[in-house]
Amino acid sequence: MEAYLDNSATTRCSERAAAVMTELLCGGYGNPSSLHNKGKEAEDAIRKARGQIAATMKIDGKELIFTSGGTESNNLALLGGALANQRQGKHIVTTEIEHPSVQAPLDVLESLGYEITRLPVDADGILSLEELRQALRPDTVLVSIMMVNNEIGAVEPIAEAAAVIHEANPDTLFHVDAIQAYGKYRIYPKKLGIDLLSVSGHKIHAPKGVGFLYVRDRVKVKPTVYGGGQQKGMRSGTENVPGIAALGTAAEEAYEDFDDKIAHLYALKERFIAGVANIPGVTVNGKTGRDSAPHIVSVTAEDVRSEVLLHSLEEYGIYVSAGSACSSNKPAPSRTLLAIGMEKRRLECTVRVSFSVHTTEAEVDYAVEKLGEIVPFRRRFTRK
Amino acid sequence: MEAYLDNSATTRCSERAAAVMTELLCGGYGNPSSLHNKGKEAEDAIRKARGQIAATMKIDGKELIFTSGGTESNNLALLGGALANQRQGKHIVTTEIEHPSVQAPLDVLESLGYEITRLPVDADGILSLEELRQALRPDTVLVSIMMVNNEIGAVEPIAEAAAVIHEANPDTLFHVDAIQAYGKYRIYPKKLGIDLLSVSGHKIHAPKGVGFLYVRDRVKVKPTVYGGGQQKGMRSGTENVPGIAALGTAAEEAYEDFDDKIAHLYALKERFIAGVANIPGVTVNGKTGRDSAPHIVSVTAEDVRSEVLLHSLEEYGIYVSAGSACSSNKPAPSRTLLAIGMEKRRLECTVRVSFSVHTTEAEVDYAVEKLGEIVPFRRRFTRK
Repeated sequence: MEAYLDNSATTRCSERAAAVMTELLCGGYGNPSSLHNKGKEAEDAIRKARGQIAATMKIDGKELIFTSGGTESNNLALLGGALANQRQGKHIVTTEIEHPSVQAPLDVLESLGYEITRLPVDADGILSLEELRQALRPDTVLVSIMMVNNEIGAVEPIAEAAAVIHEANPDTLFHVDAIQAYGKYRIYPKKLGIDLLSVSGHKIHAPKGVGFLYVRDRVKVKPTVYGGGQQKGMRSGTENVPGIAALGTAAEEAYEDFDDKIAHLYALKERFIAGVANIPGVTVNGKTGRDSAPHIVSVTAEDVRSEVLLHSLEEYGIYVSAGSACSSNKPAPSRTLLAIGMEKRRLECTVRVSFSVHTTEAEVDYAVEKLGEIVPFRRRFTRK
Repeated sequence: MEAYLDNSATTRCSERAAAVMTELLCGGYGNPSSLHNKGKEAEDAIRKARGQIAATMKIDGKELIFTSGGTESNNLALLGGALANQRQGKHIVTTEIEHPSVQAPLDVLESLGYEITRLPVDADGILSLEELRQALRPDTVLVSIMMVNNEIGAVEPIAEAAAVIHEANPDTLFHVDAIQAYGKYRIYPKKLGIDLLSVSGHKIHAPKGVGFLYVRDRVKVKPTVYGGGQQKGMRSGTENVPGIAALGTAAEEAYEDFDDKIAHLYALKERFIAGVANIPGVTVNGKTGRDSAPHIVSVTAEDVRSEVLLHSLEEYGIYVSAGSACSSNKPAPSRTLLAIGMEKRRLECTVRVSFSVHTTEAEVDYAVEKLGEIVPFRRRFTRK
């Protein structure tokens, strides 16, 4: 048996999205900038994807910039948003638990003279609205807060944060990294008061190599890639038509039978948590139930190092993550786990389990069963 | 009948490349940064692609940075190369006929205080090595010259230019935009003296949304995308594994039976040129035969505006380009055609015809036949 429980690292492309992509690789393969029919077909495919995505967020398809993925979306939002609005100020507010693709461009902005306030989070990974309020200044150009944390599934109070930000300063831009949230929540940026919102394709069963940034109408962003002026000059380069079309399809698919899908994910999560509760020394980090993201569980198995656990599970065809996959084999301790105040000893014994709509109860049961065997065995081994 | 003669805008993805891509969308869909087997499989797919591409250029696969396409490759080479080597100087040499994805980042560098020397070309679009020599200075940090011009198929003297550059200043980096050249020429950067070389997937029958930048060992480039530190920190973001694997396959395929393929392209080009020579008022721009690129022909049909010709051909299922597709529907006159000294009247009556290895003699004959019908008819119409 196999249980792929690393869906927050990446997901299997959906059959429908893959079919759309394949069709456009060899069939409608025109360049959308070409003036002839083949170009128009490709342009139509992009327009269709804009419409599909726009419908899921109640926005205008023109407010989408297609990128090469979540990392580029976050880079464009932060570098592009800050640099285009320097007159507003050079102060940025964010949290201590953002993804590296948010943290790293902010480090770049810091080296360019921007001042970055990094807000702490509580033991569940949740930001304090009061601390956010206090951090805001007249020269705050941008606030960047992730909606769902990629390591522990904490859900930040985005709507409330937006209200706090816009009350303090109507000119401050609010960027939301929704890479782990889109497809799991109904997100309506206009209603919520979000100016910029990042999404990655391969986290929602679309292919790798494509994503988008929502840029609210009239919000200015400086491009990060220059050239032929595609996408109104905001993102030059021949559009990844097959990838964009597949993303549109996957987005549409994600919101079909949405409540059932989310209920399924929460049921899996509950089942998993109930199962591991019986394993001595195993604890779940952060909030659970509807107060947390439906697809992510952070589990600590005391005295069993995460790599050991990961590889032991792998032998049974069970795939989980040590921390998050996004930090590319780096041995550095997780900033999120540090930020929620986890002691080093426990931090090194933490894995992330993440589900998709295709995950079955049988897979969850299998993983729980094997965890129940591995953890006590490995723990005895460690204590020798 | 249909004749897709716009292969310099984009190509049909090869069946082999598409199959590799499809397999990795739904099969080996892991995140290469994941520590388990699924991640390793994805990493192996990338390593394989590195090897396939490296073999075509006699380089080390580690010298490749995968990007989202040719535009990003050119941006990374120019912005990254110039900004990482500022101590060498802030003077850059290029030509007047570069692609917008080279010209635009150079404009950005100019706004940051860099000085750009843009060398003219002759009536065939060829740069003067003597003028290049004279332009080089001790503070020249970078020279950027395209290998094959995308509009008229002019082939620049890259090897000779490299010798001139390195003789004048061994610390000056030499970037070659090989987006229209790779797959049409055997390019060995180390032998030629090239430091940075850009390639786009979708011009060589790989998918859109992927490309690479060759960065010679020990050459420093500043990243343009920041995040999780993938690709040794040079290009963060989860790698587009299916796209990269498809690019590796397409690269390998392009150099199989290479001489036969190139002979086929030149035969098509010769056949086309011989055919249109019989149509009054039609002329071919730039060099022809082995002195020019095998796949691109620039044709002027006097008194027939290029859009009119393009759309008339389209009615017969013949697809060509007005100028180049890369400048995204912009009405601005072609900088390349201006640079070769073409008068405005002729410039507005110029189309690009571009072949691929899959183009047949029958398609060429069909296009020639229809041009022979359309051009005299449209010309009479224009002269009324």
